[in-house]
Amino acid sequence: VTGSGSPPGSRSASSPAIFFLSDYGTADEFVGVVHAVLHLLAPAALVIDLSHHVTPFDVGAGASLLERSAPYLGSGAVLAVVDPGVGTDRRAVALGVAGPGPTWLVGPDNGLLIRGAGVLGGVVRAIHLRAGTDRPPGQPGATFDGRDVFAPAAAHLVTGGDPARLGPDIDPAGLVAAEPVGVPAAGPVRTADGSGLLVAVRWVDRFGNAQLALEPDTLVRLGVAPGGVARVRVRSSAGSTGAPGPFVSARWVQAFGELGPGELGLLTDANGWVALVLDRSPAATALLIAGPGTEVEISGGPGR
Amino acid sequence: VTGSGSPPGSRSASSPAIFFLSDYGTADEFVGVVHAVLHLLAPAALVIDLSHHVTPFDVGAGASLLERSAPYLGSGAVLAVVDPGVGTDRRAVALGVAGPGPTWLVGPDNGLLIRGAGVLGGVVRAIHLRAGTDRPPGQPGATFDGRDVFAPAAAHLVTGGDPARLGPDIDPAGLVAAEPVGVPAAGPVRTADGSGLLVAVRWVDRFGNAQLALEPDTLVRLGVAPGGVARVRVRSSAGSTGAPGPFVSARWVQAFGELGPGELGLLTDANGWVALVLDRSPAATALLIAGPGTEVEISGGPGR
Amino acid sequence: VTGSGSPPGSRSASSPAIFFLSDYGTADEFVGVVHAVLHLLAPAALVIDLSHHVTPFDVGAGASLLERSAPYLGSGAVLAVVDPGVGTDRRAVALGVAGPGPTWLVGPDNGLLIRGAGVLGGVVRAIHLRAGTDRPPGQPGATFDGRDVFAPAAAHLVTGGDPARLGPDIDPAGLVAAEPVGVPAAGPVRTADGSGLLVAVRWVDRFGNAQLALEPDTLVRLGVAPGGVARVRVRSSAGSTGAPGPFVSARWVQAFGELGPGELGLLTDANGWVALVLDRSPAATALLIAGPGTEVEISGGPGR
Repeated sequence: VTGSGSPPGSRSASSPAIFFLSDYGTADEFVGVVHAVLHLLAPAALVIDLSHHVTPFDVGAGASLLERSAPYLGSGAVLAVVDPGVGTDRRAVALGVAGPGPTWLVGPDNGLLIRGAGVLGGVVRAIHLRAGTDRPPGQPGATFDGRDVFAPAAAHLVTGGDPARLGPDIDPAGLVAAEPVGVPAAGPVRTADGSGLLVAVRWVDRFGNAQLALEPDTLVRLGVAPGGVARVRVRSSAGSTGAPGPFVSARWVQAFGELGPGELGLLTDANGWVALVLDRSPAATALLIAGPGTEVEISGGPGR
Repeated sequence: VTGSGSPPGSRSASSPAIFFLSDYGTADEFVGVVHAVLHLLAPAALVIDLSHHVTPFDVGAGASLLERSAPYLGSGAVLAVVDPGVGTDRRAVALGVAGPGPTWLVGPDNGLLIRGAGVLGGVVRAIHLRAGTDRPPGQPGATFDGRDVFAPAAAHLVTGGDPARLGPDIDPAGLVAAEPVGVPAAGPVRTADGSGLLVAVRWVDRFGNAQLALEPDTLVRLGVAPGGVARVRVRSSAGSTGAPGPFVSARWVQAFGELGPGELGLLTDANGWVALVLDRSPAATALLIAGPGTEVEISGGPGR
Repeated sequence: VTGSGSPPGSRSASSPAIFFLSDYGTADEFVGVVHAVLHLLAPAALVIDLSHHVTPFDVGAGASLLERSAPYLGSGAVLAVVDPGVGTDRRAVALGVAGPGPTWLVGPDNGLLIRGAGVLGGVVRAIHLRAGTDRPPGQPGATFDGRDVFAPAAAHLVTGGDPARLGPDIDPAGLVAAEPVGVPAAGPVRTADGSGLLVAVRWVDRFGNAQLALEPDTLVRLGVAPGGVARVRVRSSAGSTGAPGPFVSARWVQAFGELGPGELGLLTDANGWVALVLDRSPAATALLIAGPGTEVEISGGPGR
């Protein structure tokens, strides 16, 4: 038994798996057909779906989902497809990483993979997937590389195939950089009057918890102790000119259940970031947080 | 070939599986990460998802879903997470059951497991899961016990690990009782004028069929025979003061397709309860049934 | 590595799987319970979900989904359930096909299977599933044949059981015909003034791409070359009396990314049909295409 919120220790003990995420949704057969192709080509590999409900074309959201998942993945390969540039000259790639966890990440070279690759030890090799990408005239169109290019490549790699057969090595330094997680991308910045920090929302989850680009240590340096109270206000989404909302108090708690009805909380979440939360209610909705990129101002001491 | 609506006979023949249900949704990576952890710790166990779309925090709905599923589960363990109290002092538990079917149910001690455990032969042993629940400072928060506590415990049990290593035995009599399925919780009650029964809606499914806390035998005792007609009216949701709707007729049929367009039917459903149904249309919507707990009055003879 | 948009070559190499599609949704436990039953009865068979989000009761949409998936399925059996007639005298069937790919398709005899069976080599044997369909009084109702009839039959067949034990052979010629994909069902027809073609929308996918009942070769015969421009207007859904919309131009491209913002495109899709598309935006919404069956007029030369 592992537990304690830390990833299980020996991540190479189990049989290899293919960890699959996409923006395909599940209303159509896209995900099922990719599973079928993977089963044909790598019948011994378990396919684990991380999620297929990434907002269509939202490469940054897919990259965040992969980054959050990465510490918990065992041996095998990541197959990730959020790919608005399918069919263009954007490159299809396989990224070899240092470990622990999966050995390869397969997908488009559009920033989707690079943050996850960082969590998984960093890119040590990059392959430009050329095999299978030339389509003879009269063939179905080049709109489903998940089925036609990425799944076969992931199956090839997870079954121990020679990576060089998939295409030439390329310089990892030339890979498309990841999109910033939010504004400010570099992390918290001081507000103009120096009284607090401006941080970005990184993620709003199913329950309406708003993960901030803010670590617990930074909160302590703002003068807020666990159990103490901070002042929080939502500034706006990036680029908006709207006036900021009022300051409200948020109490730093360790469990949703410590909060009273409607009481706003700050909680170190399961990924180690500080999140804005309510008990059994979506904080993001209550605070009119639009999603990743919304700016939040936070400082020590209570709000109104 | 089994068939006949009864659960397959020999439920211990197959390899053990982990039957996983939650309110995690599938938009985020929660379900996928739990699968990844289970694969690391119990690589030989198949993970079967019952559903992850339980309404957030609705422990009663999760308990009902598990209870309905239980007769069809083979050997292994149930992993169930609908857990508004995560991080508080609510207990994490593993419940050993008499069988047939899964041997253990793992989840929070909040009533989620206890009805399913009843279907699976009743609780014969209860463990308070303490291993892995102490989180050192600086670790990610205690908000994802599905990943950090429940999945490791289920993997430990399904791989034949010693239950005592997970924590101390506790008295099953002290487990949190299940929430009532609806009002009236105890089953049908006579209406004030004695002319009929008041029953609760137990479940509204994907197709809008409204399962009632009413067995076919009770319907017969009301003087309604298969093929015959009953009078039905929706009273209100629990606690509402609204006036009841009009009585309408409902015909007791054996298949949706026996009903004419817009004709209300009573049908013994796949779990053995009487349901209010329409043909290819959601009866719950047509009757303004809000969901579980809505009261329905039913008596012999036709409505208007 | 296969690739090139063509189905992987050797489709019998892998272990048999059960390819499962339905209109069950995932909010309830229906899909999970069927998985549990399949695991009990065919523990060695992998179950691959194609989709469970077919619109409730939409047999034609399920048939289309299966037809599109079929070329990519390996050995095993298809289990398909979109079954408004459950419990009536509609037949439950297993259809043996010539291959390659799955050997059997199991489901209701309502047109759901027959188009997929055509892609899989055509029906060479048909069994009327009678075993397990008689329900003794007092048993749960006959509303969940996916669990009680179809899954046991699929498990029996995929584990090499004798098909004759499931029921009598029936004449494949007597199977219920597939619903037409759209109007005009037979394929493109000339418009009244002879200037263009009238084609039906076959499918609107997750991304709002509208697949037309139009092959690239037909577009060439209309005088439109790859890279060239066609005139397109939406006529109406079948049966509507509304006036057609204006003609708009659509450029024949090979990738979504070749299109400018708001520019309509024609693209050979991953199934080999011509689709109406926008770049990162739902074309079907922009063109007010209701869904399968909507008629689209297309001719050579630019629109306004």
